[in-house]
Amino acid sequence: MPTNATGRLAYLAGEREVEIREYPVPDPEPGALVTEVVRANVCGSELHIWNGTHPLLDRMVLGHEALCRVSDLGEGVTTDYDGEPIAEGDLVAPTYFVACGKCAACGRGEFRSCENALSHWVKHPDEFPHFHGTFGTHYYVHPEQYFYKVPENIPEGVAAAANCALTQVLFGLEEVDLSYGETVVIQGGGGLGQNAIAVANEFGAETILVEGVEERIERARDFGVDHVVDFREYDTVEARADRVAELTDGRGADIGVEVAGVPEAFAEGPHLLRNGARYLEIGNITPGHTTEFDPALLTRKNIQVTPTMHYDPWYLGKGLDFLSRTVERYPYAELIDAGFDLVDVSTALQKADDREMTRPSLVPGHEH
Amino acid sequence: MPTNATGRLAYLAGEREVEIREYPVPDPEPGALVTEVVRANVCGSELHIWNGTHPLLDRMVLGHEALCRVSDLGEGVTTDYDGEPIAEGDLVAPTYFVACGKCAACGRGEFRSCENALSHWVKHPDEFPHFHGTFGTHYYVHPEQYFYKVPENIPEGVAAAANCALTQVLFGLEEVDLSYGETVVIQGGGGLGQNAIAVANEFGAETILVEGVEERIERARDFGVDHVVDFREYDTVEARADRVAELTDGRGADIGVEVAGVPEAFAEGPHLLRNGARYLEIGNITPGHTTEFDPALLTRKNIQVTPTMHYDPWYLGKGLDFLSRTVERYPYAELIDAGFDLVDVSTALQKADDREMTRPSLVPGHEH
Amino acid sequence: MPTNATGRLAYLAGEREVEIREYPVPDPEPGALVTEVVRANVCGSELHIWNGTHPLLDRMVLGHEALCRVSDLGEGVTTDYDGEPIAEGDLVAPTYFVACGKCAACGRGEFRSCENALSHWVKHPDEFPHFHGTFGTHYYVHPEQYFYKVPENIPEGVAAAANCALTQVLFGLEEVDLSYGETVVIQGGGGLGQNAIAVANEFGAETILVEGVEERIERARDFGVDHVVDFREYDTVEARADRVAELTDGRGADIGVEVAGVPEAFAEGPHLLRNGARYLEIGNITPGHTTEFDPALLTRKNIQVTPTMHYDPWYLGKGLDFLSRTVERYPYAELIDAGFDLVDVSTALQKADDREMTRPSLVPGHEH
Amino acid sequence: MPTNATGRLAYLAGEREVEIREYPVPDPEPGALVTEVVRANVCGSELHIWNGTHPLLDRMVLGHEALCRVSDLGEGVTTDYDGEPIAEGDLVAPTYFVACGKCAACGRGEFRSCENALSHWVKHPDEFPHFHGTFGTHYYVHPEQYFYKVPENIPEGVAAAANCALTQVLFGLEEVDLSYGETVVIQGGGGLGQNAIAVANEFGAETILVEGVEERIERARDFGVDHVVDFREYDTVEARADRVAELTDGRGADIGVEVAGVPEAFAEGPHLLRNGARYLEIGNITPGHTTEFDPALLTRKNIQVTPTMHYDPWYLGKGLDFLSRTVERYPYAELIDAGFDLVDVSTALQKADDREMTRPSLVPGHEH
Ligand SMILES: [Zn+2]
Ligand SMILES: [Zn+2]
Ligand SMILES: [Zn+2]
Ligand SMILES: [Zn+2]
Ligand SMILES: [Zn+2]
Ligand SMILES: [Zn+2]
Ligand SMILES: [Zn+2]
Ligand SMILES: [Zn+2]
Repeated sequence: MPTNATGRLAYLAGEREVEIREYPVPDPEPGALVTEVVRANVCGSELHIWNGTHPLLDRMVLGHEALCRVSDLGEGVTTDYDGEPIAEGDLVAPTYFVACGKCAACGRGEFRSCENALSHWVKHPDEFPHFHGTFGTHYYVHPEQYFYKVPENIPEGVAAAANCALTQVLFGLEEVDLSYGETVVIQGGGGLGQNAIAVANEFGAETILVEGVEERIERARDFGVDHVVDFREYDTVEARADRVAELTDGRGADIGVEVAGVPEAFAEGPHLLRNGARYLEIGNITPGHTTEFDPALLTRKNIQVTPTMHYDPWYLGKGLDFLSRTVERYPYAELIDAGFDLVDVSTALQKADDREMTRPSLVPGHEH
Repeated sequence: MPTNATGRLAYLAGEREVEIREYPVPDPEPGALVTEVVRANVCGSELHIWNGTHPLLDRMVLGHEALCRVSDLGEGVTTDYDGEPIAEGDLVAPTYFVACGKCAACGRGEFRSCENALSHWVKHPDEFPHFHGTFGTHYYVHPEQYFYKVPENIPEGVAAAANCALTQVLFGLEEVDLSYGETVVIQGGGGLGQNAIAVANEFGAETILVEGVEERIERARDFGVDHVVDFREYDTVEARADRVAELTDGRGADIGVEVAGVPEAFAEGPHLLRNGARYLEIGNITPGHTTEFDPALLTRKNIQVTPTMHYDPWYLGKGLDFLSRTVERYPYAELIDAGFDLVDVSTALQKADDREMTRPSLVPGHEH
Repeated sequence: MPTNATGRLAYLAGEREVEIREYPVPDPEPGALVTEVVRANVCGSELHIWNGTHPLLDRMVLGHEALCRVSDLGEGVTTDYDGEPIAEGDLVAPTYFVACGKCAACGRGEFRSCENALSHWVKHPDEFPHFHGTFGTHYYVHPEQYFYKVPENIPEGVAAAANCALTQVLFGLEEVDLSYGETVVIQGGGGLGQNAIAVANEFGAETILVEGVEERIERARDFGVDHVVDFREYDTVEARADRVAELTDGRGADIGVEVAGVPEAFAEGPHLLRNGARYLEIGNITPGHTTEFDPALLTRKNIQVTPTMHYDPWYLGKGLDFLSRTVERYPYAELIDAGFDLVDVSTALQKADDREMTRPSLVPGHEH
Repeated sequence: MPTNATGRLAYLAGEREVEIREYPVPDPEPGALVTEVVRANVCGSELHIWNGTHPLLDRMVLGHEALCRVSDLGEGVTTDYDGEPIAEGDLVAPTYFVACGKCAACGRGEFRSCENALSHWVKHPDEFPHFHGTFGTHYYVHPEQYFYKVPENIPEGVAAAANCALTQVLFGLEEVDLSYGETVVIQGGGGLGQNAIAVANEFGAETILVEGVEERIERARDFGVDHVVDFREYDTVEARADRVAELTDGRGADIGVEVAGVPEAFAEGPHLLRNGARYLEIGNITPGHTTEFDPALLTRKNIQVTPTMHYDPWYLGKGLDFLSRTVERYPYAELIDAGFDLVDVSTALQKADDREMTRPSLVPGHEH
């Protein structure tokens, strides 16, 4: 049963214009969940959307990362998506997208590529069930939306981030079949990059980070990166390629991971890799940004490129397991900044945009 | 035993400057073969090399496609690489590259990516065993170089081409796991593209060719292509993308094959494909040619790119089997033009360069 | 809206004791379908259940194969599982099992292994929604149960069988990656075996059937089998193994398919296969039947065994596509016998049990 | 250059009848190596052969595991199979089998299944190059036989064993795609089992050993096994299955590894595994030993069986890398017993047969 009759949410009314609005807390449909948001993180996507540079989304409820507490179970919901019993009061992490099960992609079993993945997210709050994003006191989990009970040993902010960076790189690195004993070069030391270091390390791989920001390099060292190629020292593609070669018996890395999010990183990738390498492309997700690219660099080296936009939704369960096993070994909590009240969401967005903070988080419950 | 004491070969002395030279026919080392060239085709690579635009190769014996007759068996050679007994007089097709077995790539079992693949090809004829290329009366097959007996029902020129276009696309389409019932869009109707139509058709796939040259389109129809998107009618990327969408339930093709050999085709690829498609890159092999490319087009559609430069050498055996099974069903012989004497190799190259002919061939035995 | 207030169904009250019972036609839940059964086939499983030899099932509504006409769409149902618009009156084929999405198997994305696959089937008709099996005037399709519109060119009985034999072998042969040019030996020429011949043939494989019943051998020839190893002629394991070797260059087949359904076939399998072969096990599904087995036969030949009980549910869509493409080329309809009224279900079962008929079918609409 | 004109080897003249014979040390053919044996281990296979229970081998030079010192390089040998420079005096580990490259299996790229894998091993010493087995002062490495330089930090006996148990289970566990976070149940705590614990642990998997011999259980604990199911306590299949279920959330393990080497273990396997599990069969390699087996146990659980007899030869390089990385973390040396002179080979075999020792080793150099 819902604990309060109405809830509040952060609505993007226009470019960099957020309003807090109030809506009735809905009753869950059969198979759905109504939850209270315990913690929600501000991620790069919110900045893009807030700044109006995300081409596909506007006029919507903000927020996609969250740790939630179940407040109302729809008819028929007795377990999470791993078969674990679920009850009111349980802490859960939902995927931020869905696999509809009925589009052409889902119809091939390629749930990661569901054509309707974001159909519930990009909605105006006047539409039922109102709480489409995680920047609010409540969040509605749809019948086909995967969610998992959160292991107790995962800190709040880390659990809230599980459905994004960690699970994305875990999925991606399994897609390119990163194996024990291989070397992976990671382009970019933001949240995705740091999580990639943790995953690669657990898989028994050697890690090389290409990055130029001191703070990110230091954090990567806390995450146990094996080598850093510092942009400030190696300031050309050639210099970085030579340095990576030097670290890999003259050959280049087995795996590349693009999480810098700029097209130039994609163009640089092949130079850092060995013949027959695999390249995971995650960072470049906003169309319209091009670079000069030489496809023969891929062909002559037989480099396979695997881009991943989302993940098969059951990977969130694997992501939470991963965090639970390794939470003592990696400083995941350092990736999350202190929390703001929901009413201060614009401040939080501004601080992230100014790069004063990496990943501010919201704690809607503060305001109760 | 060699049938004559000396042989002749086509040596590239400088840009567009070919000399016919004479060398002693070598004795084969243990594991090697000496062969007489029955037929050798002029392929696009030879034109690049002849014109001096191939960055990696010069001053060498020309030619990489050939049908050969075994004239001298090295010690220990009793079978081809499929275990079939081999004897003097047998017709064989060799791979044009080797898998050395001892480089880092071979050491991972990735024979397709051997770092020494072309080590025997790019050699001056003064060096033993002289007959490094197929444009000559003889051709030397090294101990680690795969070769296969040629089924009797394959015409000479077609057999000579087996180690190049057909086997390359057969390998590539298996690498991207082209499956029964899928739709493949092929960019470019040259030799690779026509062979891709045959392979895709045999695998039970539907084929769409993107091409603008009338003669190639007609040939594709002879090869049984299902649909043609004619550049002359659909003259923008958008128009071609719309047309492919129209042919594929509005979604784009399952598989793309780039055999046009220009960077712009690579940049166009993602527009022709569905969410979650696979893209086979074969045509762009000469580094130094760039295009404006937007990597987010790959990411947002989860399009996996698989480039292939060579193939695992045992695929030549599969390629010959494929030709033997299907030689009645596809006009492979149309892809090969009439033969020239070895002394006329420059004429043959000129005619190919002028596009008067597609794939002239040499018949060194004419001159006996 | 339901066209009649009540419907009838075949209830297994005890061993070989079927009663026709009447129940109210239910209203569909959100996401569900109510359908009228156009045609339902009697399959081997029904005989096992009827005879009481199926260990897991009893006291239930019979029937799992069907062609259905949509009579009532649950809230929110607008398309089938391939995104095709769906309306009352459409002909659909449903899977006979579900993937619950929430068990441990589904939670790994292994929908084919759902632990609750048969949860809706094995139910007493007193329980809502009553019409749990396809032997009735109506059939209820649950919200998580895949269903597909049936292409118009597929005959009724063939469409009714699509969710069983054809889709099962299509899935299985893709699981063992049957490829163009390979040879497959099929143990058993019942419905599964005949469908396996069609699929293997379409994939470009060569087929060998091991069978001893004249009628089945003749049917296999109609299905275009390449070779038959007749049990009556080759009456020992060794003789059959020798014959298969003879047909495969002395090596054994690349792929084996066990659809005989007896443990002895499983024990014979390795003898028919080459080193490094793959073996698809489908037929042995009833536990408690053992055979003397030598596991070293698998090890010494590196034979991989892939058993499949069900299939990923989206394969039913692929199965219907397959039938639609190939319906002119294979005599699928021969596999289905003439139809009975629902009241004559015991007669139909008896005739199948007596092997007077292969696959009798029910046409519940006859009785209207 | 050979350091002595003749060498000695252990020849199996008859059942349990070993003679030390003397032969000239051969000159290496092009591509071959002559080596001095530094250390050779007595493995289970030698006991089988010695006792006459190995059906395929007799009258031969004994021994397949060895650490060797290069004494004579054949023409053209400049590197090992990983491209590392090689010189006289280097310590190397060779595979004990070959991939001929020319049989039907090699012709499909399935080097693990080479039909001529043991062609050099099972030979009478009168035949050139005499030193066909590792129980001798010298060992001949053929041109197509993979060998790798041995990292310095690997102890002698461990290096000698690298080409057998460790590399076999490393290959096998990659074949069944053992992944981070999975649970593997290992049947049998001999050398293969202990090595499997190490590999599984490094891959981030949880390990369960099923074993009943105290000493093996203790060793497994030294190797860091997570759980032991003790045959003495759980003395029925059902009890062991229940215990494994209890350790795995009631479901059974993700992966099973059969290294007990008895058919009963194979029959027990499915009971220990979850729905959709993978089963690696390594131990049962001697044909002629059967068990009562119920194939429906595989089918109903969709359990895939992957048997491996040998490995792709480049895995030996990966195996040596693995040992070098992990030699400080696992007590590999405990698996190898103290060394014997070559003349005492019968004593060593007897002690292994009497189970007084696990893996005695020979140190042929002692006798110089
Ligand atoms: Zn979807
Ligand atoms: Zn995020
Ligand atoms: Zn190589
Ligand atoms: Zn060519
Ligand atoms: Zn399930
Ligand atoms: Zn059926
Ligand atoms: Zn071989
Ligand atoms: Zn051994």
